[in-house]
Amino acid sequence: MNDKLTYQTEREVMFYDTDCGGVVHNLAYLRLIEECRTKLGNQLGMDYKTMSDKQQFAVVVRHEIDYVRPGVLGDSIVTYGWLSSVERASFWCDFEMRRASDNTLLVKAHQQLALVQMPQGRPIRIPAEWREKWLRGMNE
Amino acid sequence: MNDKLTYQTEREVMFYDTDCGGVVHNLAYLRLIEECRTKLGNQLGMDYKTMSDKQQFAVVVRHEIDYVRPGVLGDSIVTYGWLSSVERASFWCDFEMRRASDNTLLVKAHQQLALVQMPQGRPIRIPAEWREKWLRGMNE
Amino acid sequence: MNDKLTYQTEREVMFYDTDCGGVVHNLAYLRLIEECRTKLGNQLGMDYKTMSDKQQFAVVVRHEIDYVRPGVLGDSIVTYGWLSSVERASFWCDFEMRRASDNTLLVKAHQQLALVQMPQGRPIRIPAEWREKWLRGMNE
Amino acid sequence: MNDKLTYQTEREVMFYDTDCGGVVHNLAYLRLIEECRTKLGNQLGMDYKTMSDKQQFAVVVRHEIDYVRPGVLGDSIVTYGWLSSVERASFWCDFEMRRASDNTLLVKAHQQLALVQMPQGRPIRIPAEWREKWLRGMNE
Repeated sequence: MNDKLTYQTEREVMFYDTDCGGVVHNLAYLRLIEECRTKLGNQLGMDYKTMSDKQQFAVVVRHEIDYVRPGVLGDSIVTYGWLSSVERASFWCDFEMRRASDNTLLVKAHQQLALVQMPQGRPIRIPAEWREKWLRGMNE
Repeated sequence: MNDKLTYQTEREVMFYDTDCGGVVHNLAYLRLIEECRTKLGNQLGMDYKTMSDKQQFAVVVRHEIDYVRPGVLGDSIVTYGWLSSVERASFWCDFEMRRASDNTLLVKAHQQLALVQMPQGRPIRIPAEWREKWLRGMNE
Repeated sequence: MNDKLTYQTEREVMFYDTDCGGVVHNLAYLRLIEECRTKLGNQLGMDYKTMSDKQQFAVVVRHEIDYVRPGVLGDSIVTYGWLSSVERASFWCDFEMRRASDNTLLVKAHQQLALVQMPQGRPIRIPAEWREKWLRGMNE
Repeated sequence: MNDKLTYQTEREVMFYDTDCGGVVHNLAYLRLIEECRTKLGNQLGMDYKTMSDKQQFAVVVRHEIDYVRPGVLGDSIVTYGWLSSVERASFWCDFEMRRASDNTLLVKAHQQLALVQMPQGRPIRIPAEWREKWLRGMNE
């Protein structure tokens, strides 16, 4: 993990996060990942309001998720998210989700995103300053 | 229930509909209600695509829901929806959700909607033909 | 609002909270209400873990929700929740959801809950200490 | 695709499936995939009720999803799901999601599942008859 660019959110498991198998449902993890990524984006200057005004959105292109251990009601889950690479037309974010009480790894995710100009849905180039910000974070 | 204008959807309970209390979560019923209402709307001529093109949307103004009995995994839930009244600037839909196997009532809902012109969010008058359609349905 | 027993959560609107009408979807408010109510419950001593161990759950019996103004992406929504009454076999919680930036009321909700012994689903009496705690809060 | 073992579900895009970017939200696809997989499971004899009684559940271990084209309101999405391999302790399902009107590929998913004995969470062996059923499907 890169300290400079890692964003961290913590959420208690709610009833709606669980299913009748007694564990956190896989859809719930993805919601928590999106929340973490949004806040990571804010921190990097991918400002929500601005992007909405410009109608430029970060869209998920590919998602790889490993469900390592189940979370349960009563857990508090910490989601760590960071930029793992910045390419010309897309960028990757990595996530680790851990049980707060004992740091057990629950979920790992690797997510590729592109920037898209709506409503046309046309991919646009990742801004140079994101890459710089990301490289700066890597070096510090 | 008014046979003419009642729309009916049936869905099996999925894992994501349940929580670790072993029953269908209250959020899941509302998703099923929205699906039923959308299809009821199609039937009444509130055409989705057209409304999206006109940027006129039916928005929920008030919602009253009674959770009568719990649904569980393995149940198939039938949602019945119908127009219960059409007013000048809003209309009401009623819903009953029943377990398919034995017709047990699980949930009752009463929902007030308005038509809104987006992006301004300005309420618009309910089209006269909806009221006529609704009255015709009542009389037949 | 009763200061002593009011619990308050604040959440930024996420993409998954909105729909293509450009506003926060009504299902999203209910998720935020459940989060607030859970934390209110913790504060009142309706301990999550304990209740799960005892298999005693607070289940929603009735829900009345007024959608007053739409929330949008970029809003941060504060949910205020408090016990509005404690009866023999059920209790009511009230909620107000406001846009953080200007305190605009977005949603009001009034929710009746019962305590249920699972897996039988048998209603149980509201513990006397909850009522006392609630009355104490009212008087202070 | 293997005709014998392919299960197919079709769902119209609902408002709650979309976000304010104007497209179907990535969480919505996963819900549709789970619905398709559940019905595929039923068809293969992984009976829901029985599994719940035995407390044996199919849990997602890994998920790879490619979001190829965006779905929008007004689309009807067909989800095709099939068993792509059966191993000793896990099995893989593949999914393709296509716009019904023109067969455009929207989403591809590749999902690894294990069978787990709850509440211990212990992995159990994939029943021999599933493998046979799957191989039989392959040969026919």
